[in-house]
Amino acid sequence: MAVSREKNAPHQVVIVGGGFGGLYTAKALAKANVNVTLIDKRNFHLFQPLLYQVATGTLSPADISAPLRSVFSKSKNTKVLLGEVKDIDPKKQQVILGDQVVSYDTLIVATGANHSYFGKDNWKEFAPGLKTVEDAIEMRRRIFSAFEAAENETDPEKRRALLTFVLVGGGPTGVELAGAIAELAYKTLQDDFRNINTSETKVVLLQGGDRILPHIAPELSAVAEVSLQKLGVIIHTKTRVTNIENDIVTFKQGNEVQEIASKTILWSAGVQGSPMGKILEARANVECDHAGRVIVEPNLTIKGYKNIFVIGDLANFSHQTGKPLPGVAPVAKQQGEYVGGLIQLRLHGHTLPEFHYTDVGSLAMIGQNLAVVDLGFIKLTGFIAWVFWLLIHIYFLIEFDTKLLVVFQWAWNYISRNRRSRLITGREAFVEPQPINNNNPYQATETKQPVKV
Amino acid sequence: MAVSREKNAPHQVVIVGGGFGGLYTAKALAKANVNVTLIDKRNFHLFQPLLYQVATGTLSPADISAPLRSVFSKSKNTKVLLGEVKDIDPKKQQVILGDQVVSYDTLIVATGANHSYFGKDNWKEFAPGLKTVEDAIEMRRRIFSAFEAAENETDPEKRRALLTFVLVGGGPTGVELAGAIAELAYKTLQDDFRNINTSETKVVLLQGGDRILPHIAPELSAVAEVSLQKLGVIIHTKTRVTNIENDIVTFKQGNEVQEIASKTILWSAGVQGSPMGKILEARANVECDHAGRVIVEPNLTIKGYKNIFVIGDLANFSHQTGKPLPGVAPVAKQQGEYVGGLIQLRLHGHTLPEFHYTDVGSLAMIGQNLAVVDLGFIKLTGFIAWVFWLLIHIYFLIEFDTKLLVVFQWAWNYISRNRRSRLITGREAFVEPQPINNNNPYQATETKQPVKV
Repeated sequence: MAVSREKNAPHQVVIVGGGFGGLYTAKALAKANVNVTLIDKRNFHLFQPLLYQVATGTLSPADISAPLRSVFSKSKNTKVLLGEVKDIDPKKQQVILGDQVVSYDTLIVATGANHSYFGKDNWKEFAPGLKTVEDAIEMRRRIFSAFEAAENETDPEKRRALLTFVLVGGGPTGVELAGAIAELAYKTLQDDFRNINTSETKVVLLQGGDRILPHIAPELSAVAEVSLQKLGVIIHTKTRVTNIENDIVTFKQGNEVQEIASKTILWSAGVQGSPMGKILEARANVECDHAGRVIVEPNLTIKGYKNIFVIGDLANFSHQTGKPLPGVAPVAKQQGEYVGGLIQLRLHGHTLPEFHYTDVGSLAMIGQNLAVVDLGFIKLTGFIAWVFWLLIHIYFLIEFDTKLLVVFQWAWNYISRNRRSRLITGREAFVEPQPINNNNPYQATETKQPVKV
Repeated sequence: MAVSREKNAPHQVVIVGGGFGGLYTAKALAKANVNVTLIDKRNFHLFQPLLYQVATGTLSPADISAPLRSVFSKSKNTKVLLGEVKDIDPKKQQVILGDQVVSYDTLIVATGANHSYFGKDNWKEFAPGLKTVEDAIEMRRRIFSAFEAAENETDPEKRRALLTFVLVGGGPTGVELAGAIAELAYKTLQDDFRNINTSETKVVLLQGGDRILPHIAPELSAVAEVSLQKLGVIIHTKTRVTNIENDIVTFKQGNEVQEIASKTILWSAGVQGSPMGKILEARANVECDHAGRVIVEPNLTIKGYKNIFVIGDLANFSHQTGKPLPGVAPVAKQQGEYVGGLIQLRLHGHTLPEFHYTDVGSLAMIGQNLAVVDLGFIKLTGFIAWVFWLLIHIYFLIEFDTKLLVVFQWAWNYISRNRRSRLITGREAFVEPQPINNNNPYQATETKQPVKV
């Protein structure tokens, strides 16, 4: 079923992906004389930077989501299409979704990236990542099930493994998860159990590079490291994970090989561009980097196709600093706004100078009343950084949800740390206490992939 | 692994089930000189009367849940045990959970009830019920996926089936779902789609008896019926569903057989006691009624065992009116409080007169600013009933969550009807538009039960 094109119809813009890049492109085009089709697999935009708070029981998925249709309900030129793009035909200017074909004049690909297991995809089962709502609910299930199983476990060694949480990756997600789990164990859950003392919990953060939060200034990394250690987190830098199996993480630090027995291993390392990179490689002959990200031109188009843009985490834009811009929300947002503006100017025969990213700073939450903020010209730590972090996130959330009270509700939920959202739900909601020598007691019974280790 | 008993240890109370019955029993015993073990499959209490609001995108699961451990974190005599009771040994006074055995002096069974498909369990696949958080998320996924698929469907007949919602069962859940779906279609989603007009949606409510909401006064049933019809709901009373397959509901009204093509059939009819009823039948020789509910003595014990109580939806208590008390929260709550009090009195050699249910009235929400309330001495309808409904629910929620602001947040979420929570999530989060002659496009790909029709 092809979408028919009328003659003299307005310029057709197709955006694939409703993350920050796609959302801000569509917003920039909301009042333009173009037709916009925004395609996403999901019916909602997800505010991914706060996903770790769903995983640790502070927020509900809906608190950090906005239904795409309601975001664009008043933009009559914008059509939301729920579907998965399977292929692209750049010659015919069409994207293909199953048996449905959508024609475009201009195409924006903003399908993001996933974590990379560096070729060890069988680790994924034991060490899930955090990119989707389902990931967050699965992570939440594992974290809270581990405490429950520990409460029921009498063998001290098994109990220790249940109360050991290993975070692989020392970027913002790893740091924020480590801080949140430490607060859960050492504060929130203190009175809740009768057989275990949750302060015996071990939270271990493994980082490949020589410091955590490599995207911020070294002095702030140091502050974050000390703050996390004060919260009780054990940090190993310059480590390389060499194996994950049977609830054992093996890692190398220099020449020293160490093992940690842990029932809850969580992954937030590496970047792997989404499959659309490969499709563009095959169909439009673009070059991808080692992480599967598409190398883009200075104006964010791809070589040979000035009507195809790639933005956000899937794009490797290296024209500004010689290194790819980081995969963070502000980059995707600014690229979306740039592309939206460029498309409108082109309709009138104009163009824009090349894309330039304005660094708005970096920040990471460590724990209650504790964050680090790097604005370049000023660096904040501790409580003031935490307040700043909160205000910035409220500001961003307001941008796509004008219901101010919803935002305050979110802020309240966050500030009060009530952790009411610590529901163990999902396909295997209840986990029977299991002997620790089982390969993976948390493994869903109906997993498609057999355990490969 | 048996839980060892010390000599002169306090009286051991074991409560199976953390619904209203179990929760209020445990609360009544929180300061008593007994040890309480509260066993539940889930780590949270679920405020089931509001589950339909999760299913229709108004609330998040965590908004209507309270983690059992945090409810009892300050009650040092109360232990929460996450587990599923598989068997009971009334002679040895033990409950069995897998390889774990828990001894009791007094046992309270409060495991509730499910919907009944009247022997047609293969209908469940096509017409899911609403008892758990997972049920609600599945229902939400079906409802919003139906609108999405309709937006993509060009065949008018198929589109009509996608925009037809059939509710089987005219009790509070069916009525509340019908009202909520009608409001979604005719109000909330009006501006969100480009190809369909959501006001073409058909919401059909099928009721077996001669009026909806049979538990309230006939004049209020009539008001509810008219109100629902004004909202756009089509009501058929005195109907009997004779078949559900291939997205067709067949039902008889008198001798007339009718068929409705619908992609979203939701079930809220019948009562079926939980499997613990059968276990008690086998082990303690109790009598169950036709719905699998346990016939209890006037003091809520079972015949032959004065230390085993059955309360809430699983109990058939007919001593007051000759008919079983209805399966509603206030009955379970009062029974829990009664049993908690009786256990304490027995420790001092006293007892209580038989249980007596104080009818606190019935109520049902129909839509925004619209409810019916039957307090016996006074009957309310319309806006004033709606305000009353809201206040009653806030009062109940406060009882087990003292964080007042959380309750206001819930009330705000509800009053504002922002429906931000309309996330399509779950194991098959994205539903490809499918031809309507497929047996069941929404069927999860990994369903254990093959389709039987």
